Amino acid sequence: MTNEERFMKEAIALSKKSIEQNEGGPFGCIIVRNNEIIARGNNRVLVDNDPTAHAEVVAIRNACRHVGTFQLENCEIYSSCEPCPMCLGAIYWARPRIVFFANTRQDAASIGFDDSMIYQEMGQDLSHRKIPVVNLCRQEALKVFAQWAAKQDKTLY
Amino acid sequence: MTNEERFMKEAIALSKKSIEQNEGGPFGCIIVRNNEIIARGNNRVLVDNDPTAHAEVVAIRNACRHVGTFQLENCEIYSSCEPCPMCLGAIYWARPRIVFFANTRQDAASIGFDDSMIYQEMGQDLSHRKIPVVNLCRQEALKVFAQWAAKQDKTLY
Repeated sequence: MTNEERFMKEAIALSKKSIEQNEGGPFGCIIVRNNEIIARGNNRVLVDNDPTAHAEVVAIRNACRHVGTFQLENCEIYSSCEPCPMCLGAIYWARPRIVFFANTRQDAASIGFDDSMIYQEMGQDLSHRKIPVVNLCRQEALKVFAQWAAKQDKTLY
Repeated sequence: MTNEERFMKEAIALSKKSIEQNEGGPFGCIIVRNNEIIARGNNRVLVDNDPTAHAEVVAIRNACRHVGTFQLENCEIYSSCEPCPMCLGAIYWARPRIVFFANTRQDAASIGFDDSMIYQEMGQDLSHRKIPVVNLCRQEALKVFAQWAAKQDKTLY
């Protein structure tokens, strides 16, 4: 068994724990740096009443707490399922070096999770979305963006 | 001023607070139900060292805590900027009835936030992503999906 397979089995074990302890859906994730597991997460949507508590988001938050920054450079993410758009977005903001996944988004759809639908919606024009998205007060909000752009002591992220 | 504009000004005020208190980028969000603000959030990436602490995610978590469920039916989301893919994903999982936004994803890109790039990546084939995404151990993970499908006492979400 390769190291990568060994780490993925840990993520899959977390996905099993998630449903056996009724914490959420069958999803687990671990984050590895220098061949060492630095964070774990499993789906906690049900136990936390939190629709954002997917395994990857939970693991990324734990990993960032562990390393003390909002970036996961040189880290590897092992997820028991292909990340949904929310989790993939979180991964891009966290910037790990690589992502491994086991079940696919189609596998997730086949047991009732809407990942595929959400991927389709991402590419839809705003006027064709299932949840309406409406622009409002842009000129007012642009002033705060200009204030950020002009801010001298800001931390870029 | 319409009610919608009044609520959006609250979200924009939070985006301003976020940068003035050095908590994160210029992003704010409020969640409304029955014409009443039930939750607020602003970007807390810097102060929490948490790349997932975008205004919308923070507000959704607060709103779900407030209503005691993982769904935001009949709620309206007012975000000072068009949601990034992570936040849009979170919105689809939370299922509010409508989303209002002020600054656009292009406005965000123009002050250095990568939302547009991440939207492009969402639609890319796995083999062409900037962060490599690799499939591994699918057969092993499918067993846990089958266990979920067969589970009698599960909560669907």
